[in-house]
Amino acid sequence: MQDERLEKQIDFIIEIDKLKSIARQTYIADGSRYENDSEHSWHLAMMAILLHEHVSVGKIDIVRVLKMVLVHDLVEIDAGDTYCYDSKAAEDKDLREKKAADRIFGILPPDQAKELRNIWDEFEERKTPEACFAAALDRLQPLLLHMKTCGKSWKINGIKYEQAYRRMNPIVESSHALWNYALEVLNDSLEKGYLAR
Amino acid sequence: MQDERLEKQIDFIIEIDKLKSIARQTYIADGSRYENDSEHSWHLAMMAILLHEHVSVGKIDIVRVLKMVLVHDLVEIDAGDTYCYDSKAAEDKDLREKKAADRIFGILPPDQAKELRNIWDEFEERKTPEACFAAALDRLQPLLLHMKTCGKSWKINGIKYEQAYRRMNPIVESSHALWNYALEVLNDSLEKGYLAR
Repeated sequence: MQDERLEKQIDFIIEIDKLKSIARQTYIADGSRYENDSEHSWHLAMMAILLHEHVSVGKIDIVRVLKMVLVHDLVEIDAGDTYCYDSKAAEDKDLREKKAADRIFGILPPDQAKELRNIWDEFEERKTPEACFAAALDRLQPLLLHMKTCGKSWKINGIKYEQAYRRMNPIVESSHALWNYALEVLNDSLEKGYLAR
Repeated sequence: MQDERLEKQIDFIIEIDKLKSIARQTYIADGSRYENDSEHSWHLAMMAILLHEHVSVGKIDIVRVLKMVLVHDLVEIDAGDTYCYDSKAAEDKDLREKKAADRIFGILPPDQAKELRNIWDEFEERKTPEACFAAALDRLQPLLLHMKTCGKSWKINGIKYEQAYRRMNPIVESSHALWNYALEVLNDSLEKGYLAR
């Protein structure tokens, strides 16, 4: 290939195909199997398009949010999916994921590597309105799947209301409407026994 | 739930989870299984972000392209994936997909239903630079997977060079660089026997 820049872009596009094989701890809505990271990322992007009107803190840059949710899990190609309730695995999660970001984004031409790395760093730091909204979606999406699967994954892992409540908490930083909705689902899940007391 | 609008949005978000169970005829890059529509849509969105600089025909609206590739296959939840080389199934594809679009987008609040339906119609008509680019990506992405899997799906279905060439042709309407690249892959695939003569 003559175009070195395009060659790097294609190499990256092929490399990230691996995201389709990174299983999460959440079941898809029909409960038949675990969801993978690429499916989750697509779902978040759809949610960003449809729900950004509910953000409570001013206007957000939707392109930035879309890029953020589309790339936010790419590091898991190397670092694996760290289950959000696994405190042992959380210990070295940051280190593993930063190393992965260096390698994976490093496949791209330098300007694009820098752009996507900045976007991923922004997501991880959760300070901008865009990053807070992306984090809110990243919490809300599995909540919807837990609700639809009668808490299948919660039950298997013995998750308590208190734990799920803490996990959902970032939603309140971004959207009152989405937080109220999440709270309703959490309370309903406790009542139905999807979450332990 | 008090917020009827949010309720419709959530209903839609849960409904489209079914896209994760719509299998395509393309294998993921490691050849282990068929790709599904939601994975494919995520991959196209990543490609749109990385490759839009190669569009030959002026400046494009990247948000519109992202929305287009993220929603372009939703109709297959009802209509199923129509294999691009299946001329029999192609006969009633339009009718099946339009009916699906009515039902699926109709779950949303009317303004969002209209917006996404317009975006899908635009993709299908392939007239705007955004739709041409989205179509080019929709052709190029499986080509990359065919290349990586040594033409596994092509071989199973006995696909000829001529057929694959015609299928890739829309790329030339959007990007000279991507078309040159696709042509290189096609010729290489013929030489290696991934495509039949």
